[in-house]
Amino acid sequence: MFINKNILTTSNKIRICMDLAFFARKAGVKVMLIESCSGGFASSYITSLTGSSSWFEGGVVSYSNKMKQDFLGVNEKVICDFGAVSEEVAAEMVSLPKYSKTNDVVSASITGIAGPGGGSKEKPVGLVCFGWAGSWGVITRVKKFAGNRNQIREQAAFYSITCLAKEISFIL
Amino acid sequence: MFINKNILTTSNKIRICMDLAFFARKAGVKVMLIESCSGGFASSYITSLTGSSSWFEGGVVSYSNKMKQDFLGVNEKVICDFGAVSEEVAAEMVSLPKYSKTNDVVSASITGIAGPGGGSKEKPVGLVCFGWAGSWGVITRVKKFAGNRNQIREQAAFYSITCLAKEISFIL
Repeated sequence: MFINKNILTTSNKIRICMDLAFFARKAGVKVMLIESCSGGFASSYITSLTGSSSWFEGGVVSYSNKMKQDFLGVNEKVICDFGAVSEEVAAEMVSLPKYSKTNDVVSASITGIAGPGGGSKEKPVGLVCFGWAGSWGVITRVKKFAGNRNQIREQAAFYSITCLAKEISFIL
Repeated sequence: MFINKNILTTSNKIRICMDLAFFARKAGVKVMLIESCSGGFASSYITSLTGSSSWFEGGVVSYSNKMKQDFLGVNEKVICDFGAVSEEVAAEMVSLPKYSKTNDVVSASITGIAGPGGGSKEKPVGLVCFGWAGSWGVITRVKKFAGNRNQIREQAAFYSITCLAKEISFIL
């Protein structure tokens, strides 16, 4: 049987979300997801699981630059200087300056190029920038995924969730 | 072959989203989705379609009451008086007072009880309140869906999208 390495199995996806649930509950934090290219996929998957309301705060699907600015306070100049798909913007998206400090919220951001259009030589389709914020500060990373639009979105969402769970586990 | 009437076919789902895309483009408006019980499902489905960034502004997954207040400006008293699952809260969620007026944005809100827990005699599992806002003002409606958690979420998401497309078509 051919197994596409760009597609996660359902049991793998559930295990990844259960890991996040376990660590978030243990740390007493709530999770917030700020998604651009994944368009709500990560939030939708997490909330499909019964009981997620006890540890999932919510999310923002900041698809447009205007939303990144108005809802998340991302600096317009940072978007102009580095582009919406950049570690700098991922860091601003995840920071939630007014929210996280008062609510024991940890957050993850995803901004990338899911394709099929929108790619360039410097920023090809599949390039995704991530941010994770919590008591550890703000961490960012860039990854390049292969596959079609929905495979890229899915891989980005679960990579973000996996790393967020790991970061929370470190503060326990 | 047994066909579960609570599950939409893939071609039906795509047609519903294509209708919304058609009317939004024709009306020159952008779409914003404010989701509670559907947890980003509607945003995720819409953004899985290529080209959606030209008419989809983004969304908020306001899962917690705190998010409904902080990100959407929902009045705490309205939540206390009517409950998070109410037409009154759906109307406040969808209103986006600071955003919609300046950006030609139309919006839809979804707040309900996806289950399996959280239901009561007055507000059983499957009860979902909706809001739609645009140049037509704010419209709200209540529906009761059958099925399991994910079937309720899916039906709520596509009902919201279907009605938003219809409202936009009326202003053309």
